[in-house]
Parts: sequence; C-alpha cells; structure tokens
Amino acid sequence: MVSSNDILLRVKDALAQLNLNGKPDELYKPIAYTMAGGGKRIRPVLTLLSCDMFGGNLEKAIYPAISLEIFHNFTLVHDDIMDNAPIRRGKETVFKKWDANIAILSGDTMFALAYKYLIQTDRKFLPGIIEIFTDAAIGVCEGQQLDMNYESTASVTIDDYIRMIQLKTAVLLAASIKTGAAIAEADVDDIEKMYQFGINMGIAFQLQDDLLDVYGDQDKFGKQIGNDIVTNKKTFLILKALELADTKDKSDLLDYFASTNFNAEVKIQKVRSIYDKYAIKETTTDLINSYYSKAVEYLRSTSIPEEKKIVFRTYSDNLMQRDF
Amino acid sequence: MVSSNDILLRVKDALAQLNLNGKPDELYKPIAYTMAGGGKRIRPVLTLLSCDMFGGNLEKAIYPAISLEIFHNFTLVHDDIMDNAPIRRGKETVFKKWDANIAILSGDTMFALAYKYLIQTDRKFLPGIIEIFTDAAIGVCEGQQLDMNYESTASVTIDDYIRMIQLKTAVLLAASIKTGAAIAEADVDDIEKMYQFGINMGIAFQLQDDLLDVYGDQDKFGKQIGNDIVTNKKTFLILKALELADTKDKSDLLDYFASTNFNAEVKIQKVRSIYDKYAIKETTTDLINSYYSKAVEYLRSTSIPEEKKIVFRTYSDNLMQRDF
Repeated sequence: MVSSNDILLRVKDALAQLNLNGKPDELYKPIAYTMAGGGKRIRPVLTLLSCDMFGGNLEKAIYPAISLEIFHNFTLVHDDIMDNAPIRRGKETVFKKWDANIAILSGDTMFALAYKYLIQTDRKFLPGIIEIFTDAAIGVCEGQQLDMNYESTASVTIDDYIRMIQLKTAVLLAASIKTGAAIAEADVDDIEKMYQFGINMGIAFQLQDDLLDVYGDQDKFGKQIGNDIVTNKKTFLILKALELADTKDKSDLLDYFASTNFNAEVKIQKVRSIYDKYAIKETTTDLINSYYSKAVEYLRSTSIPEEKKIVFRTYSDNLMQRDF
Repeated sequence: MVSSNDILLRVKDALAQLNLNGKPDELYKPIAYTMAGGGKRIRPVLTLLSCDMFGGNLEKAIYPAISLEIFHNFTLVHDDIMDNAPIRRGKETVFKKWDANIAILSGDTMFALAYKYLIQTDRKFLPGIIEIFTDAAIGVCEGQQLDMNYESTASVTIDDYIRMIQLKTAVLLAASIKTGAAIAEADVDDIEKMYQFGINMGIAFQLQDDLLDVYGDQDKFGKQIGNDIVTNKKTFLILKALELADTKDKSDLLDYFASTNFNAEVKIQKVRSIYDKYAIKETTTDLINSYYSKAVEYLRSTSIPEEKKIVFRTYSDNLMQRDF
C-alpha cells in the first residue's frame, strides 16, 4: 500500500509533466495558469487511493485521475465567469486576468483535454470510466444550474439544497472514487458502494465548506470568512436558521439576506449571532457527521479486509477534520 | 446503399427522439431549443454516408453521428456568446434569448451529452472514435481562438487564415467522415484518406461560405449578405484583395475595414466593386475548386469500388454547389 502523501506527490508529478503548452498561446496560457493554481488535488488523490485500496495498478489510473482534476478546474474557470468572481486560490481568475471569452474557450478546451487524458488507460476500462465521467459531468452542470436558480428563488428547502450540493460537489468526488475502483477491477457491488461512500462524503464535505465559511479560521481557510453571508448565498446554515428562528430573528435574517448594503463586518457578526442563538454550528456539525457516518458505513460494507482500507479511510477522515 | 435523403431522414428521426427534457428546465430548455433549430445536419449525414459507403452498419453509427451534431451545436452556442451574435438560423441565440450564464452552462452540458451519445455503439469502436472526437474538439477550440485573435491582428496572412478555417471548420467535418469509416471498420489507409478528404472538402466548404456571404443570394443564403464586410471579418476574400490591390484601392479597403461607421449598403457595394476589379470571386472559386479537387483525389484513391462511392460523392458535390 502506498501512503496518501506518496500518492499526492505522484499526482503533482503527473500534473507537472502535462504538456499544456499548445498553440495558440491565448488559449493554452490560461489553462496552464489554472492547472498551476494549486488546490488540494482531492479528486485525483481519491482516484488513486481507491484504486490502490482494491489492489489496482496505479499506472493505469494516473491519467484518468489527472483527467478528473482537469475537469474540476474547468468547472471552476466557467463558474468564476458565472459568479463574476475576481479571485480564486489567492490569484486572479482567468475571467478577470484575461476576459470572459478566453475563459469560456480555454474552459471548453480543458473539458476536451480531460477526455483526452481520461482515455489514457487500458481499452477495457474505457466504456466504464467514460460513462462514470460523463454522468458526473452532466450532474455537475445540473448542480451549477440549480445553484444559480436558487440565487433568485425565495423558497429553497433544505432538501433542495442537499440535492443541489449532491450534484454540484458530491457526484464528482464519488465519480473520482468509483473510477479508481473500476480500474482496480473491484467487485461490481464494491464499486457501487464506493460511489455511495463518495456521494455521502461529498455532501458532508460541502456542508463542512459552508460551515468553515462562517466559523473557519481566516488564515487557514484561504478565503474571506463570512463571504457566503456577505453575498447572500443560500447554504444549509441560513436555511436551517430560517427554519428555527422566531418571527423577529427570521425577519432580521431575511432583511440581511435581501440586501447587499450592510457593512460586511456588521452583517457577518449579526447573522453569526443569530446562528449562535439557534446552535446552527452544532446542527450543521451533526448533519456533517450523519452524512459522513453513512459514507463510512458504505466503506465498511465493502468486501475487502479492513486493513486494506486504512490509508483511504485516514485520508478521508483527515479531509473531514480539515480547517481549511 | 441508402440514399442521402433516407440518411437525412434517419438523422432527423434520431434527433427528434433524443430525450432533452432533463431537469432543471433552465438548463435543458435551451438545449432542446438549440437542437430543434434546424441546420443542414451535414456532420451526422456525412458520418452515416461514410459508414454506408464502406459497408458499415448504420445502427452502430447513428448515435456517434448525432453526437457530432450535438457537439457542433454546442460550439455555436458558445461562439454566439463570444461573437455577441443575436440571431442564428433566423432565431434568437441562446445567449440573447436567455443570458450568457445559461448559454455557457447549457453549452457545457451539450458537450457532455455529445460524449454520452458518442459511446452508444460497440465497445470495440470506442478508443478510436473517442480519440477522433476529442482531437477534433480540441482543434475546433484552437480554431475559434485563432479566429478571435485575428480580429485584432493587423497582419493575418492567407496561410494563417487557411490554417484557422482548417481547425475551426474542417477538422470536425473530417472527424465526422472518419468516424463513419472507423465504425464501418474500413481499412486504416482508407480511414486516413477519408480524413484528408474531409480536411480539404472542409476548407473548400468554409471558403465557399465566405464567398456566399459576399456574392450569395440573400433569400437562399438565410444570413444577411455582406455581413462579413460590415463586421470587418477577415476572410480569404479581403486578404486576397489586399494582396492584389494597387495602393489606392488597398488604402480604401483598409479604411473600410478599420471602421464600423460606414453606411452598410454603401460599404458592401464599394468593397464588392474593389473585389470585382481584382476578380476576387473567380480567384476564390479557383481556390475552392482546387481544395475540392484535392479532396476528390483522396476519395478516388480509397480502395473500394467506384460505384460504392457514388452516393457519398454526389452528396458532397451538391454541398459544394450549394447556394445557401
């Protein structure tokens, strides 16, 4: 078994060796810039860890793993146009540094490049992994559309929200894990269980992101704390608070979330104090733990010996305990 | 052998049966709207004609053929954002009817859907046709970027222009034809010759589009005649005219192509009169014929009996004689 650190190094090495110096420069420079932007490389690491856990050959999974990272970065490039976001991972977004047209087109090229790398494995894996990948890609687009819809929808329920983050975030994490298991030729039942692990872990992961946005440590999180509150983003936290709050607090929350005219610091502090009053942090943590427990149950139910699961499980546990 | 009319009907039938009613509506309605937009369905027809010519089973090529049509329509949706184009095939563009974000995201979804249909054929064809498709997709993006670059480049050569239309237009036509031949399990040499047929025919096809834009019949062409002149688009016609014109005419052409302040009718008439003086119509027709002859030479050199090529050849000849 390979350690997750070794696997991260392999992913970084493969990313560093990608040839992203095509022509014209205007198309490829933004791609190289995006792929050099860092990030935790969670998706390819999960692919390789899952492959290794089921005794697969990592050489056969490395390009499909990289492909998932390219696809993930493509979605960020296009999302940043749609969200009009100037900064990502501490650097200007492609849309801001170049322009929207270049961000559209270099994004499209990344999507095609993702397929180019996806198929760099044994032929026998192709039907399976292309279907996994394509279904995830469609799901991510549906999730992003729901996310945009919810910006202007008054009555978003918690169920709506969970369904949205399942599509927008969890299906790609689940697809990454499933791809690794498929290349390891794991048992069909085990592959499906790992997919379900990924769905539940992915929902927990996004809920945790929402929690960190409000309660995280600014220096570690890397993004502006309270950004979701300032930009009136609908997350589990606000939806739950609206459900629990009394008339006065609910009215205050709705006022805050209907406007962008408040002083950011004041708004964050006021909203957070209402969250605190209704124990939203604890409720969110409970929900994260509940989804993650369900995920772990799926992992436990796979047919391989427990000791083979340790590296994957530890990596996943650490992800759930992250403060960034 | 099946007639090209029968094949067009099969393509239309398969397109009509696509399930494009996914959720959320905001994502899928623009996709259904785009795919219902008509067009000549050239790419899927070429795939099936090429498959039939080499004795292939059309049932195995129909979804890959449709996939190429979905991909082509995806590129139009994104191009229309980049070109800020309000009208396509007589209808509002997605970007205009909805908004840029919806056009970006429904376009992305169409790209993923193209792969979903591409793989609906025998497993043994997948490595080949996915590579053909993905290389073409990357080429089309590179071509679109070059096209955008040339808008602001003073010194575009005719060679630059031909390379751009090869990528932007010809590689997808060539890929469509190659896909059909690959699914018919044609001889490797024949598959490559059909690809080269497509490249040369595709360049001729785009040059003819440029010619029709200036000299076409408004009612038949379906687009505004003279639009390339009005919008200062660099095409073979203007590049060739600049090469041949004397100092005075060249200076006039440069003035016209540096401004959008002229009365459209006057500008079109003036530019066309300079084109006429230097026989640009005839020179362009000669170049079209030269590329198409080269294409036909590749077709002739394939190993199958000439009588099997008749339907494909007639369809292709008709395409080159179109006045719309």
